[in-house]
Amino acid sequence: MVNYPNGKKHPSKDLVTSTDKKRKINYGGRGMIFEESIDTSNQYYRSHRIAVIHKRPTPVQIVKVDYPKRSQAVIKEAYFKTPSTTDYNGIYKGHYLDFEAKETHNKTSFPLSNIHEHQVEHMRAVEEQQGCCFFLIHFSLYNEVYYLSFKHLEFYWQRMKQGGRKSITLTEIRNDGILIPYGYKPRLDYLSALTLSHESEE
Amino acid sequence: MVNYPNGKKHPSKDLVTSTDKKRKINYGGRGMIFEESIDTSNQYYRSHRIAVIHKRPTPVQIVKVDYPKRSQAVIKEAYFKTPSTTDYNGIYKGHYLDFEAKETHNKTSFPLSNIHEHQVEHMRAVEEQQGCCFFLIHFSLYNEVYYLSFKHLEFYWQRMKQGGRKSITLTEIRNDGILIPYGYKPRLDYLSALTLSHESEE
Repeated sequence: MVNYPNGKKHPSKDLVTSTDKKRKINYGGRGMIFEESIDTSNQYYRSHRIAVIHKRPTPVQIVKVDYPKRSQAVIKEAYFKTPSTTDYNGIYKGHYLDFEAKETHNKTSFPLSNIHEHQVEHMRAVEEQQGCCFFLIHFSLYNEVYYLSFKHLEFYWQRMKQGGRKSITLTEIRNDGILIPYGYKPRLDYLSALTLSHESEE
Repeated sequence: MVNYPNGKKHPSKDLVTSTDKKRKINYGGRGMIFEESIDTSNQYYRSHRIAVIHKRPTPVQIVKVDYPKRSQAVIKEAYFKTPSTTDYNGIYKGHYLDFEAKETHNKTSFPLSNIHEHQVEHMRAVEEQQGCCFFLIHFSLYNEVYYLSFKHLEFYWQRMKQGGRKSITLTEIRNDGILIPYGYKPRLDYLSALTLSHESEE
């Protein structure tokens, strides 16, 4: 968490993408709530011994550190680095999970510009090792969160690569993905959606 | 990487434990080389599609950020947080791996003070989910790196908890662990040690 001069609070993730106006718009209070609901769900999964999933720390390039002998080191200059992997990973019943949480304020589609090539490459490599990769996509206008498997995302990624549309329509996400209802414990039970999605494949 | 006033270079990890004098002594140039050999090995594993393993970024508590409209955000004040998990995790042939790299300059033993309770708890939780946890322990005086499974570490951890010695002797590590010879490609083939260790269990 960071306090801005204007006193507004944003998750540090905002800052990573702060120079990207499009995404800057896509974050803020709701994005924070979305992220927090994932974090509290992960805490629930861990405390109930259901899964061990953590958010990766935001990678930071440290340039200058004050390093007083008898007190805590203070970072005086650092910059946000582009993450080379994804937001979250961990283990669930012997399965390696790796996923990315994305939010859009769009009404009818999720822009693929929210996803980086290297994240797609990372997920390909993980699935090659029999890991399970997916996306949690938050349509903030409707406050709807969808589970979308990497397999489905890859299809739309390739469509874009072949000159097709640069987004996935909400209709497509509703067809291919699974709506994750907001609950109480856990707040966002995405592991149930994951299980459903694998059952439907069998 | 951070440049200190005295010009000496340390891996940023040092700073995380900078207030811990014992560990501070245990790091430095060699520790950096040890860490780099793990990172280059992970790059080798990834580029040869053998495994997907990454070092977790150092968790940083961001306090103050300069946030100019048209340029990159600059972190002006931040502090190192104690990591809640381990240094590295990833996937290898469908198996979730989670491990910690530790170094000692001791001659005859590895002090368990190098390991935090919460890291042990994290590894317990991961193994409960059928993950594979282990330690890479570098005895810098001999430049020897050992693979030690969490199962073995846990034995010595419990011995300490029951009032026994607060360290693992090098002899014990040589008996229970597997020496990982420094090689060329990869620099530190710890996945071979992992495989050996699991074969020996069968």
